[in-house]
Amino acid sequence: MSLHKIINDPVYGFITIDDELILQLIAHPFYQRLRRIHQMAMAHLVYPGAVHTRLHHSLGAYHLMCLALHELTSKGFEISAEEQQAAKIAILLHDIGHGPFSHALEQTLAEGLHHEHLSLLIIQELNKQFDGRLQMAIDIFTDAYPKKFLHQLISGQLDVDRMDYLTRDSFFTGVIEGAIGYDRILKMLTIHQGELMIEEKGIYSIEKFLVARRLMYWQVYLHKTVLSAEQMLKRIIKRAKLVAATCQEPLNSFINKPLADVTLEEFCSIDDYDVMVAIKHWLQHPDIVLRLLCEGVLDRRLLKVKYAAEPFAAELLQEKVMEIAEKLQISEEDAGWLAFTGEAVSSTYNFEHEHIFILFKDGTVRDISAVDHPLINENMKGRTKKYYICYLR
Amino acid sequence: MSLHKIINDPVYGFITIDDELILQLIAHPFYQRLRRIHQMAMAHLVYPGAVHTRLHHSLGAYHLMCLALHELTSKGFEISAEEQQAAKIAILLHDIGHGPFSHALEQTLAEGLHHEHLSLLIIQELNKQFDGRLQMAIDIFTDAYPKKFLHQLISGQLDVDRMDYLTRDSFFTGVIEGAIGYDRILKMLTIHQGELMIEEKGIYSIEKFLVARRLMYWQVYLHKTVLSAEQMLKRIIKRAKLVAATCQEPLNSFINKPLADVTLEEFCSIDDYDVMVAIKHWLQHPDIVLRLLCEGVLDRRLLKVKYAAEPFAAELLQEKVMEIAEKLQISEEDAGWLAFTGEAVSSTYNFEHEHIFILFKDGTVRDISAVDHPLINENMKGRTKKYYICYLR
Amino acid sequence: MSLHKIINDPVYGFITIDDELILQLIAHPFYQRLRRIHQMAMAHLVYPGAVHTRLHHSLGAYHLMCLALHELTSKGFEISAEEQQAAKIAILLHDIGHGPFSHALEQTLAEGLHHEHLSLLIIQELNKQFDGRLQMAIDIFTDAYPKKFLHQLISGQLDVDRMDYLTRDSFFTGVIEGAIGYDRILKMLTIHQGELMIEEKGIYSIEKFLVARRLMYWQVYLHKTVLSAEQMLKRIIKRAKLVAATCQEPLNSFINKPLADVTLEEFCSIDDYDVMVAIKHWLQHPDIVLRLLCEGVLDRRLLKVKYAAEPFAAELLQEKVMEIAEKLQISEEDAGWLAFTGEAVSSTYNFEHEHIFILFKDGTVRDISAVDHPLINENMKGRTKKYYICYLR
Amino acid sequence: MSLHKIINDPVYGFITIDDELILQLIAHPFYQRLRRIHQMAMAHLVYPGAVHTRLHHSLGAYHLMCLALHELTSKGFEISAEEQQAAKIAILLHDIGHGPFSHALEQTLAEGLHHEHLSLLIIQELNKQFDGRLQMAIDIFTDAYPKKFLHQLISGQLDVDRMDYLTRDSFFTGVIEGAIGYDRILKMLTIHQGELMIEEKGIYSIEKFLVARRLMYWQVYLHKTVLSAEQMLKRIIKRAKLVAATCQEPLNSFINKPLADVTLEEFCSIDDYDVMVAIKHWLQHPDIVLRLLCEGVLDRRLLKVKYAAEPFAAELLQEKVMEIAEKLQISEEDAGWLAFTGEAVSSTYNFEHEHIFILFKDGTVRDISAVDHPLINENMKGRTKKYYICYLR
Repeated sequence: MSLHKIINDPVYGFITIDDELILQLIAHPFYQRLRRIHQMAMAHLVYPGAVHTRLHHSLGAYHLMCLALHELTSKGFEISAEEQQAAKIAILLHDIGHGPFSHALEQTLAEGLHHEHLSLLIIQELNKQFDGRLQMAIDIFTDAYPKKFLHQLISGQLDVDRMDYLTRDSFFTGVIEGAIGYDRILKMLTIHQGELMIEEKGIYSIEKFLVARRLMYWQVYLHKTVLSAEQMLKRIIKRAKLVAATCQEPLNSFINKPLADVTLEEFCSIDDYDVMVAIKHWLQHPDIVLRLLCEGVLDRRLLKVKYAAEPFAAELLQEKVMEIAEKLQISEEDAGWLAFTGEAVSSTYNFEHEHIFILFKDGTVRDISAVDHPLINENMKGRTKKYYICYLR
Repeated sequence: MSLHKIINDPVYGFITIDDELILQLIAHPFYQRLRRIHQMAMAHLVYPGAVHTRLHHSLGAYHLMCLALHELTSKGFEISAEEQQAAKIAILLHDIGHGPFSHALEQTLAEGLHHEHLSLLIIQELNKQFDGRLQMAIDIFTDAYPKKFLHQLISGQLDVDRMDYLTRDSFFTGVIEGAIGYDRILKMLTIHQGELMIEEKGIYSIEKFLVARRLMYWQVYLHKTVLSAEQMLKRIIKRAKLVAATCQEPLNSFINKPLADVTLEEFCSIDDYDVMVAIKHWLQHPDIVLRLLCEGVLDRRLLKVKYAAEPFAAELLQEKVMEIAEKLQISEEDAGWLAFTGEAVSSTYNFEHEHIFILFKDGTVRDISAVDHPLINENMKGRTKKYYICYLR
Repeated sequence: MSLHKIINDPVYGFITIDDELILQLIAHPFYQRLRRIHQMAMAHLVYPGAVHTRLHHSLGAYHLMCLALHELTSKGFEISAEEQQAAKIAILLHDIGHGPFSHALEQTLAEGLHHEHLSLLIIQELNKQFDGRLQMAIDIFTDAYPKKFLHQLISGQLDVDRMDYLTRDSFFTGVIEGAIGYDRILKMLTIHQGELMIEEKGIYSIEKFLVARRLMYWQVYLHKTVLSAEQMLKRIIKRAKLVAATCQEPLNSFINKPLADVTLEEFCSIDDYDVMVAIKHWLQHPDIVLRLLCEGVLDRRLLKVKYAAEPFAAELLQEKVMEIAEKLQISEEDAGWLAFTGEAVSSTYNFEHEHIFILFKDGTVRDISAVDHPLINENMKGRTKKYYICYLR
Repeated sequence: MSLHKIINDPVYGFITIDDELILQLIAHPFYQRLRRIHQMAMAHLVYPGAVHTRLHHSLGAYHLMCLALHELTSKGFEISAEEQQAAKIAILLHDIGHGPFSHALEQTLAEGLHHEHLSLLIIQELNKQFDGRLQMAIDIFTDAYPKKFLHQLISGQLDVDRMDYLTRDSFFTGVIEGAIGYDRILKMLTIHQGELMIEEKGIYSIEKFLVARRLMYWQVYLHKTVLSAEQMLKRIIKRAKLVAATCQEPLNSFINKPLADVTLEEFCSIDDYDVMVAIKHWLQHPDIVLRLLCEGVLDRRLLKVKYAAEPFAAELLQEKVMEIAEKLQISEEDAGWLAFTGEAVSSTYNFEHEHIFILFKDGTVRDISAVDHPLINENMKGRTKKYYICYLR
């Protein structure tokens, strides 16, 4: 009897793994580390169920990849066993380069390093350890593999990464209105001239997908309380760097050493836990700004946030800064750490750079934005930017 | 201990009834008749699960009314026990005037009689039988009761009727993308100057509701196969009238007597079963058009339907008619029963006649269509009409 | 691109059909007739959602067969494409011999004819129409095919028929405690020496299955109100035969002619609708017993039922009979139609005739009843019989 | 308009909080700390979704308390607004005394201190901070309040604590077979002579509850991989104490100081994060036993576990110990930390000490174990103990 491991998943029921190499990758400490990184950073402060991990998400994306490949091969498209394995590996490892609190700290802890670049570095390291058996996965990941649709399944407007995180985040937050109907979309996948497309009868599902995604952005990812907590988190790390606050190694190196001196191995050994314990440690730090930020994140006493359609007046911000400086007896510069403005952006569907292609029954192909259909709105682009101000009460 | 009956409902879990009068109304043969009327007429030919009944829907709407009243009273709005009972009765009985196959045959079997008018007649009859105890329910039903929001809960853009049928139809069809998030909408209900409104933070949920409703229209209610079957059903009754096809009483009276000669009691004794058995009976009828229509509905061999954004050319229709006349050796007039064109209309949100009012935190009130919000589209009205042609293959 | 039709199912999401022959069988009038037969007869009088049809159930069982075959082949067991098609056809058609109200009227309308026998007759007829292409399906259905496990998937302790109806009935009644965890059981299927077995780690799921099934029997299938309604339904047909009550053809032949004179084609043209309309017709019948039974079923005014662990005393029954005879001024013999006693039986797991085999990791095989395991109870057989009395109030 | 805050919960939809005092308690740092304590310790190593927190569980139990109180008052039982508030507070705070990894480390980090005792100490501290407004909650918590059923709702065979954790753990693990049907049980609650009981028609639901609970014990809580990880976790702390391994304060005090020297405030400042970071720190510790245990928990390389119905022979254990001592070149005493035996116990229903009382329609009361009913098994006690051996591979 062949190898066959199943994992219970509240979202999909069961995830099946029946490949020895994939099981070994899952067992690797680099992958197990993802258990200790929240998928949604600080969203659990608003949605208490949203404590699922990067590991869980990447297993889910792997599962959707299996379904997608099954669907496409059952429709008669040829994808070899080796290609299927490689595509599964590529999606399984696509997030392995995420650091503590994922996107929330991505450009703060390791400035200038995008997680996709780090994922590639780590997959290359794993490729060495596994004797080059990950090469095709790397080619697919970097879009160097001829069958472009395999890369599009991993990274594109309708990739299984996106399908899983929207589905999973909707599930764990309990924001059921954000459910995208992933199973129907998967049933509608097809390939035309080497590219991933959606069958004509899947148009409604795509609209549903775009609307659900927009809803998740504004109701969840950019929820004002979540925004506040994640801004505070960023500022904690930046402030710690500024005041040279120390903590336990190896996190300490990321705070107090040049990034160039940090190794990939060190990166692979830090996670949410190190950051949270550092925050608890800094509750005693002499710098009041750092201390207030740490207390806020820890005890959920967050900076107040307001959203508006237009930028906030510089005078309003200045007023808030001066109130804080006065109240805490600190400099205006320091107070500026506790009152600031910014922009939150959600791109529902980027009409210029991204494409969801619909394959019509008559053989023509059109982008979803060009479909003449009662359900597709000209202005689905809509307004996608809001301005915020954030300040200590 | 007080009266307390619970009914299992796969949609909401449990429906509780704790009022003696309401239990008696449910036990009445007029209400029990609703067990024999499909909620979604012929939609089960596409969605095999969509076989739920008017009785089930009206129990569900009653349940949502209970939740809505609980929500509003817990927010401090005064609604007396008597008013609550009356509102519950009004929603429980709101569909009691539906005849066989509901909307699909509404203007065919009893031409000129709208089901809401028939509901009122029947509720008035029940009011007599129950010694006038339904008077306040009648006042609410006819919008004669001073607290307008009670009527709005029964009949308005966000009434519990609509909330239940969208939720229930989405559930039983399995079109989960049509789920509207009724529980969140209920939590957002409020009253302002006597009118039902939605709190500001419910705006996202309202958009979700409007989008889901639109999706249900195009994907389910106006699905081309459903449209075809329901058009055929209508034509069966019309043709039976024309050729004076007989069937068992009391349905026969509705086919072969003037409507004026039919009694309310007779109306209350016919249901889907009578129509289906008549259809089976007419499989032997000498009129070929009637016979073909009956066979088609019974064995799911439906007329072909095409949708288009523009009206179909008269020539195309004429061509189809002639093909059928030729093939079946019947007159063009008769062939016209088996090939025809028409319009399907879905009004997502009628900006002129209907309103969903949002109550903002600052006390202002605006219609959802006037809200400046990244999620609310100018053209949510969108195109709401499609043209169809329907013909025998 | 290959053939690919999907059907929305609220229970499983989507059911895929990708075989031309299977699509043709589904389109056949014999199969479409199953749309007009309730899966659960009169259970909807207690559980208003339980109005799903035999057609829906057999599509569901077909879907589970697809999953089971996929699971077994992915574990390395060889099942040819032809065998897979045949097994799918056999399960799709396994209930095609059910008549109006399925089990409730099985031995009443067509005495002595078991629905499985009728299914076989109809499948043989279809086999003729389809040029012998159903022969392997017939062999599997009749257990004449060498690979015994294929028959066991259709008819056995853990067949997909049972898995679907328990799952589906639990879903549509809303009795979620009856959910059996079909997906996990399917994952645990294996084959050993040609027989269907469960892997050792599936033991918990099997216990869950047995408990859920027991619960469904007592809480749903043998619910006292359901029992009452179905007993009344049986008596309506029997009484109609006795008093030679007439109704529309072809149902009339089943009431007023010897069974031998009825054709298979006639059988294939009757369904729930004919019976319900006959019941409505008999509301005017001169026989008071028939009339009372018909009114009761139609308006949900059912005979009262009591369950007990021991048989009811003959004196109690006699007393009820005499009360009714007195009250209605009818003979004691006639009154006996409105007061009677009986037994309700639920076999959770028949230790003597049926087997669920567990394949242990060490290669040994044991029946679930012989497993030494904290979760498997010696007396899972428990008491499986209850006695009832049923009478007009 | 009154105060009204809603929280999305994937399990129940929405949790409503409409009481100022309760909102303040939730905002308190002692309560917010529960965000950083996993509800299920190490279960996520098997069930990746099981990362929900004590905070989420206690909010859920609070929600069920609201439902239970609503049900009982709607049945006519008198529970004053003050009593309702107190009962809600008591359940909200019932787990506030849990330390890092809850039960898994309960007797290891703070030996001799049961979490219920710590909860009481903390609630008393909060009572001071909130000017005695928690006194009635304390009385209910300690069973000193006259209306005993309020305490039974918090701590008893059918308390809302248990109902929530079984429901929630089933949900987040994805082991849907463990779902208990909490909503039906709540509908069946009643009070008789001051005690919480279940109405007769709830008997099936209670059996379902007991079976589901048993299943959750063996399939989840005592799953062998979970058992292994939690045994390793305990041994890490014990070993750290033995070898005086240091870590960051305040956790360090719990490892390296007498318990008597630790303050309640210090207890309230440690959580799962401190323990995990200590484990990461000890990856470099010179003691090989500590190091191996830490690596194992971190990278999911767990000790092997076997279960059996009988105790393992001392010889087998000795053999494993010697193998390990040999392999790692350590003393047998040290090797004994990496190979050991024990007992796992699951009490489904303790017939001696605990009671679920059923109130029959005729007014009699019987314990569920004494009910003569086809569904209640004599031996529901079943075997409830298994023996295990755990050792380094």
